[in-house]
Amino acid sequence: MLYQTLNAHGGDLYGRTVELDFSVNTNPLGTPPAVIKAVRESAPDLCQYPDPCCRELAGALAAYEGVPEDYILCGCGAAELIYSYCRAIGARTALVTAPTFSEYAAALQAEGCQVLSHPLREEDGFEVTEAFLRTLRDTPAGAVFLCSPNNPTGRLIQEEILAEICRICQDRDIRLFVDECFLELSDRSRTASLKGRLEAFPGLFLLKAFTKTYGMAGLRLGYCLSADRELLAKMGRAVQPWNVSLPAQRAGAAALGEQDFLQRSWELIQEERPRLAAGLEALRLWVCPSQANYLLLKSEQELAAPLLERGILIRDCSNYEGLGCGWYRVAVKTRDENRRLTAALAKIIQ
Amino acid sequence: MLYQTLNAHGGDLYGRTVELDFSVNTNPLGTPPAVIKAVRESAPDLCQYPDPCCRELAGALAAYEGVPEDYILCGCGAAELIYSYCRAIGARTALVTAPTFSEYAAALQAEGCQVLSHPLREEDGFEVTEAFLRTLRDTPAGAVFLCSPNNPTGRLIQEEILAEICRICQDRDIRLFVDECFLELSDRSRTASLKGRLEAFPGLFLLKAFTKTYGMAGLRLGYCLSADRELLAKMGRAVQPWNVSLPAQRAGAAALGEQDFLQRSWELIQEERPRLAAGLEALRLWVCPSQANYLLLKSEQELAAPLLERGILIRDCSNYEGLGCGWYRVAVKTRDENRRLTAALAKIIQ
Repeated sequence: MLYQTLNAHGGDLYGRTVELDFSVNTNPLGTPPAVIKAVRESAPDLCQYPDPCCRELAGALAAYEGVPEDYILCGCGAAELIYSYCRAIGARTALVTAPTFSEYAAALQAEGCQVLSHPLREEDGFEVTEAFLRTLRDTPAGAVFLCSPNNPTGRLIQEEILAEICRICQDRDIRLFVDECFLELSDRSRTASLKGRLEAFPGLFLLKAFTKTYGMAGLRLGYCLSADRELLAKMGRAVQPWNVSLPAQRAGAAALGEQDFLQRSWELIQEERPRLAAGLEALRLWVCPSQANYLLLKSEQELAAPLLERGILIRDCSNYEGLGCGWYRVAVKTRDENRRLTAALAKIIQ
Repeated sequence: MLYQTLNAHGGDLYGRTVELDFSVNTNPLGTPPAVIKAVRESAPDLCQYPDPCCRELAGALAAYEGVPEDYILCGCGAAELIYSYCRAIGARTALVTAPTFSEYAAALQAEGCQVLSHPLREEDGFEVTEAFLRTLRDTPAGAVFLCSPNNPTGRLIQEEILAEICRICQDRDIRLFVDECFLELSDRSRTASLKGRLEAFPGLFLLKAFTKTYGMAGLRLGYCLSADRELLAKMGRAVQPWNVSLPAQRAGAAALGEQDFLQRSWELIQEERPRLAAGLEALRLWVCPSQANYLLLKSEQELAAPLLERGILIRDCSNYEGLGCGWYRVAVKTRDENRRLTAALAKIIQ
């Protein structure tokens, strides 16, 4: 099968020799042991179909998130939910920021939706500012897509700005999609979620994933939260009945029990991110001030190819709208791994 | 999550006490050990994204099927491919048979396609006959959906009829979708595939699954074969990049090595199907002459509920178009399991 399913992303190790993968933003501690165990133990049950309603997992998620069960829909990775959401809302025009995760625009365009792009500025450290609020007050878009912390910049949207975005969207009847997939590994993991607003704002849709938080990229499991039950039902009807595999459902339920693991991962990122950023800045690279588990950086010289020669994969961000040549994203990994990255870069940059 | 993703099917064990599941048509020997091993061994690598191009699996499939690699597209179960196919062809009108697997019509209707239904008749043992050819010669449909062996009847389409269907479709420029998901466990497992016609007939699309053949329903892995590269590329673009999980890709490659297991399964079905059919007929149930690993039967009295009380789940087929109350489907399982089914039925029917 030579069919590339879509745009190039990080994490495509296949057909390459990669010792260290900094190109994906997953948990630096990898997959928690309970998840690995759950997948191993699911192997003898694979002749069963998965539960089409994800009953056990949804129950565990409702308890974990503190929302009603019918606010939750699970998917084959958060990526599938982006596609079924874009399909279900049927928006003619949507507003995204640039740079951001390219799948929002890809999924919208697959539906024939016009995508308007609000540029985030390097001078602002790629922050979502008052300028976005002004755009939002006038936009003809029926749906807005935000990512907090944003991929690839690592910037969280400030609380007051996000509150104002919610107000404007609610007033103007604009659907608001907020991708919180990286939130739990970010600086405000406990406080920045908009989930408390779901009930009062049924046009709000939050995307969540197990991929990054629990190092489960290979399994494909994501979920979303919304009080718009009709929307969730419509999204459910547009996909096949067994979209979430049996190992993924079991692993998800197991992952939610791994809060100590998550806390340790969070602490590691808090400790190592400034250290890695300082190491990169010492090499005269511009590093975007990040609040997440990855760093966006800018270089005068090509870095990806010479790093790959040394067995290190980073994310070339030249295909992000609003970036271009010389932009790269690296994950925050363990201290030793981060050191190996900066050491390799030091040799390349000299 | 209370959202039923779509229609009710077999295999939904969840929230029930089921000792014996006759409701799914998977391999009576379950999952081959090599597949279980592959999934177990994939567990520590789950923090990696799956290969978005399924390179290794596609190579193995091309060798197994004897077709070029770019005839192959993998999906998250055959079910996902039904949806992306229906989406990609953009047909206004499509022709299906009744009864058959309900997901073709569901996926077509999700695309706003009009679904025409050709009734298969009980008097003909639900065979696809000359009557279908007459319908086909006049149909306004741009696409035709067939399943051979058909679900839930177990009937293979006769070779000459199928050849004529191909000719008509090719002449009239009608897309032909043939679901061969149950073929490898059927009487003509080695000879009935249309794959030899792919090159000469690019409008032909064959659906294949690991689900039934290798008892992998829980993992979600299917593929399709077509010489229409543009169609496959379009289908690939309409889904998320990582639709096939890492354990599913590894398990698929492992499954293809299990040809002895498949042969043993086939022999078991050949031996046990007539025995089970005779046992059911002895209870004065009408049994559709099947060439597959399952049996469609008709009963004067309700069977599903009293069987479930005894811990046995069968497929109530009353929601199939063209059937109705009193129709049931049971899988052919091992001799002992089949005996337990007929013994339980004997008590219910008396």
